[in-house]
Amino acid sequence: MTYVKYELTLGNLLKSSTVRNPGQEIVDSEFGRTTFSKFGTDVTSLAKGLVKIGVKPGDKIGILDWDTINFLRSFYAVPMAGAILHTVNIRYPTELIYYTIQHAEDSYLILRDEIAKMFVEYKELFGFVKGWIIYRTSKEEINLPFNNVINFEDLLNSDENTPLPYISEDDTATLFYTSGTTGMPKGVSFTHRDIVLHAFSIANTVSDYPISLGSGDTLMPLVPMFHVHAWGLPQLFLLKGLKYVLPGRYNPEKILELMKSEKVSTTAMVPSILYMLLAAKNSSNILPSLNLRCIIGGGALTMELKNRAKSFNVTSIGAYGLSETAPLVSFSTLNSETWDLDDEEREKYEIKAGIPAPFVEIKILQSKSDIGTEVKKKFGEILVRSPYVAKEYYKDAEATKKLWAEGWLHTGDLGYIDEKGYLCIVDREKDAVKSGGEFIPTLILEDVVSLYDGIDRVAIIGKKDEKWGERPVAFYTSDNTIKKEEVDEFLKRFVEERRIEKFWMPDEYVKVDSFDMTSTGKVDKKKLREKYYS
Amino acid sequence: MTYVKYELTLGNLLKSSTVRNPGQEIVDSEFGRTTFSKFGTDVTSLAKGLVKIGVKPGDKIGILDWDTINFLRSFYAVPMAGAILHTVNIRYPTELIYYTIQHAEDSYLILRDEIAKMFVEYKELFGFVKGWIIYRTSKEEINLPFNNVINFEDLLNSDENTPLPYISEDDTATLFYTSGTTGMPKGVSFTHRDIVLHAFSIANTVSDYPISLGSGDTLMPLVPMFHVHAWGLPQLFLLKGLKYVLPGRYNPEKILELMKSEKVSTTAMVPSILYMLLAAKNSSNILPSLNLRCIIGGGALTMELKNRAKSFNVTSIGAYGLSETAPLVSFSTLNSETWDLDDEEREKYEIKAGIPAPFVEIKILQSKSDIGTEVKKKFGEILVRSPYVAKEYYKDAEATKKLWAEGWLHTGDLGYIDEKGYLCIVDREKDAVKSGGEFIPTLILEDVVSLYDGIDRVAIIGKKDEKWGERPVAFYTSDNTIKKEEVDEFLKRFVEERRIEKFWMPDEYVKVDSFDMTSTGKVDKKKLREKYYS
Repeated sequence: MTYVKYELTLGNLLKSSTVRNPGQEIVDSEFGRTTFSKFGTDVTSLAKGLVKIGVKPGDKIGILDWDTINFLRSFYAVPMAGAILHTVNIRYPTELIYYTIQHAEDSYLILRDEIAKMFVEYKELFGFVKGWIIYRTSKEEINLPFNNVINFEDLLNSDENTPLPYISEDDTATLFYTSGTTGMPKGVSFTHRDIVLHAFSIANTVSDYPISLGSGDTLMPLVPMFHVHAWGLPQLFLLKGLKYVLPGRYNPEKILELMKSEKVSTTAMVPSILYMLLAAKNSSNILPSLNLRCIIGGGALTMELKNRAKSFNVTSIGAYGLSETAPLVSFSTLNSETWDLDDEEREKYEIKAGIPAPFVEIKILQSKSDIGTEVKKKFGEILVRSPYVAKEYYKDAEATKKLWAEGWLHTGDLGYIDEKGYLCIVDREKDAVKSGGEFIPTLILEDVVSLYDGIDRVAIIGKKDEKWGERPVAFYTSDNTIKKEEVDEFLKRFVEERRIEKFWMPDEYVKVDSFDMTSTGKVDKKKLREKYYS
Repeated sequence: MTYVKYELTLGNLLKSSTVRNPGQEIVDSEFGRTTFSKFGTDVTSLAKGLVKIGVKPGDKIGILDWDTINFLRSFYAVPMAGAILHTVNIRYPTELIYYTIQHAEDSYLILRDEIAKMFVEYKELFGFVKGWIIYRTSKEEINLPFNNVINFEDLLNSDENTPLPYISEDDTATLFYTSGTTGMPKGVSFTHRDIVLHAFSIANTVSDYPISLGSGDTLMPLVPMFHVHAWGLPQLFLLKGLKYVLPGRYNPEKILELMKSEKVSTTAMVPSILYMLLAAKNSSNILPSLNLRCIIGGGALTMELKNRAKSFNVTSIGAYGLSETAPLVSFSTLNSETWDLDDEEREKYEIKAGIPAPFVEIKILQSKSDIGTEVKKKFGEILVRSPYVAKEYYKDAEATKKLWAEGWLHTGDLGYIDEKGYLCIVDREKDAVKSGGEFIPTLILEDVVSLYDGIDRVAIIGKKDEKWGERPVAFYTSDNTIKKEEVDEFLKRFVEERRIEKFWMPDEYVKVDSFDMTSTGKVDKKKLREKYYS
């Protein structure tokens, strides 16, 4: 024999982690507690069970569930069986769930019984599905008249003797769909190596202040697993040997109770979930004593939200990424330029998209005009290279070509790098308002408008304008109706401070009862534009 | 354009790190201070300078220096120029230095002027060296009559326009030689990918308690750079954005002064260097206030040394690795099984070789007998697989075959895995004493014998014995001559505790003035055996 390559696979990550911290706990609010060691055994059994029922390398297996231990087991077992786990977005409308399963051509589906019901009526559409792997949670027996129903629990108790296939780190491990602004969702897939390197890179970053993740911390993901691998947290907890608490289906009061009983110290979520937690009935009883540290991604962390969180003793920082980048590429942990700043100054950096994670290279495509704010930096489209980003859109050569134009991954976001090396997002390229030939970055504008007392949440979009091309209009939720003149007066100081330009100030303020949200908890500006300006 | 692979190269590590923490400092006791940003610029210039003088991809470039900023620059610049850095062991005898340079066929040598002197007399032996790259440190001009002398400083100020070659992560980056017990030193080489993955793996581990390396820490390597990449610390500090302090040529008092002035918090070294530091004149003035955390490798951390260090407020843990494994594969940081133990119990684990680093798989080849100690575990040769270990010995197919017998890397060390998942080293396979068909592990035995008050340092080797094959003899340094009966009496409790077996107790105690040490600071048992029993 000679040298044997040791691959960066999910199977090897799992094996290594169970050896390192065998007795560490995984807690599922619904299914109870297990240890890394038992988890490893269960996952291996499940992988063998999948091979035994006929799963072949390269098969796609769709999964639809909330964040449970069974999802987590499948996350490792399916790729260990050589198959590709398609994490179906259960917050999609039914048609899109159907569409993505059909587009992926999933050979098997892993389903919680309640969720499986949604397929019964149209099961003829899924003739390509070779097996329906169901696990039971309901007390009432749900009738699921599919061809070849397999009990998930049976697979967990599989024959020890079935061999698992050899997995290369370059084999595809996962596939999921990301909503574009136009057209149907696009498929993005990642290899074992991508996912492992993402885990290493973020593990290295989140050990920095003020997240300071390390021995003794307990991690609870508040990002669903169907949303870009729950941002890599299902690998991070294993790599770092941390106790992991799965929240199941989201219910803010229940989540807070679970945080309290399990002493959760660290979490990650989109801004709307943090708003929801802070507004929960039991938040002021529970949060202050937890000393919670929270990574915010999938949308801007505003100073208003950071301050609100701080009043509950919750430390929050911004992070940035997208489906195509696995997802996280930057974190606003502190670096050599910011760790000596005083609190107030430092917190201004903690709400940014942050400094690039190790081995992430970020370039700004400077085709856009100067935004002329206090930072005096050019902004442009954010381009990314890293060892763990998506190589293509699944079965979509045209979109892939655009994604990788000029050999850089195009994020579709506008931003700049500030004087201390922090990435700052100014807008989605498609959401920016173009007025008189200049871009008005709505995220920066929303950040300052949201500081006005009478406003609860705000979203700014462009309205066609004969003279200027487009002009910004602010939609907001509030108990009161606000007066434009008063907000204008309030915004003056930000113009003076050069945080915004005078011509950015919204022309109108429109009160709405609520906003349509995307499946990732952001205001759906596409819908807002359609509703008011199409 | 399509997807561009982003490689795990040293160049990308450097680029990423300088962007992340541009203003972080590197301090060289001899050459002063620089920042990550300036370091990055200098390294790139140096790499371009090397290309400009004719360095070609795959060329080997030998370097001989103490731990200076110039060594550190070369560590990145040479591989970035596509060449292979041969880190020559300057503690070798001259003949072996000559031998390794000849065996490697170095095309260029990078030399500090004082060290370059050693080649003047026999320069004809190095006709294959195309260029002698010298940097000046002495006030007196040293005459160096080599063909093609190049000034290192000139390369640091090279033409910006020279392009650097494309580097694949699978290109070889480094080469160095490791002393075997028999025959000549063997060459071991590592790729960019190996070195980067080693850095990621150890970075993840050393953030665990009690090393807890993170933001704000200052790292000083007390492992020379020619010794297995200084255990990966030259990558670790960049990856984690830590201030890095280079000690230059080792002088214990000077090192301690530097630790004090630069507020060093974390370091790594072999046991003999820690003994040296603790014994330095200024140790009790300086160490207690530093709260130093120290990783001990390259030899066993005994409880005696750990306690001695603790009395200076130095926290020490064991680590394990060898040249062939890049080197570190395990650390005795705490895991799920040990972090709840009380101090005294926990410290027993902190002196072990430790739990495997992420993605390191350790297997015990159980061909050896039961050691019958309190741990009731079988021991055997330690085998390793990981993504960052050496694939071969350079130009030595025979030794490579043995190294990778059965598809596992053979460490030549004997050990076992304890009940909490910690690797414990019991001996070098070649140093174990075989008595009556059973192995006596000398490291375990030395650990308990060293606790006897009258003994300073101890080394146990086997002496031929007609009846038993071999019997253990203890060589020791001390101010007094000790009595065997008294040590025997002292050792009884360890026999009762089953930490050692009765038949392990040394037959003789031989006082010596001092020990011959290997270049890595271990007692040279090979020389001891030659001196007394050959």
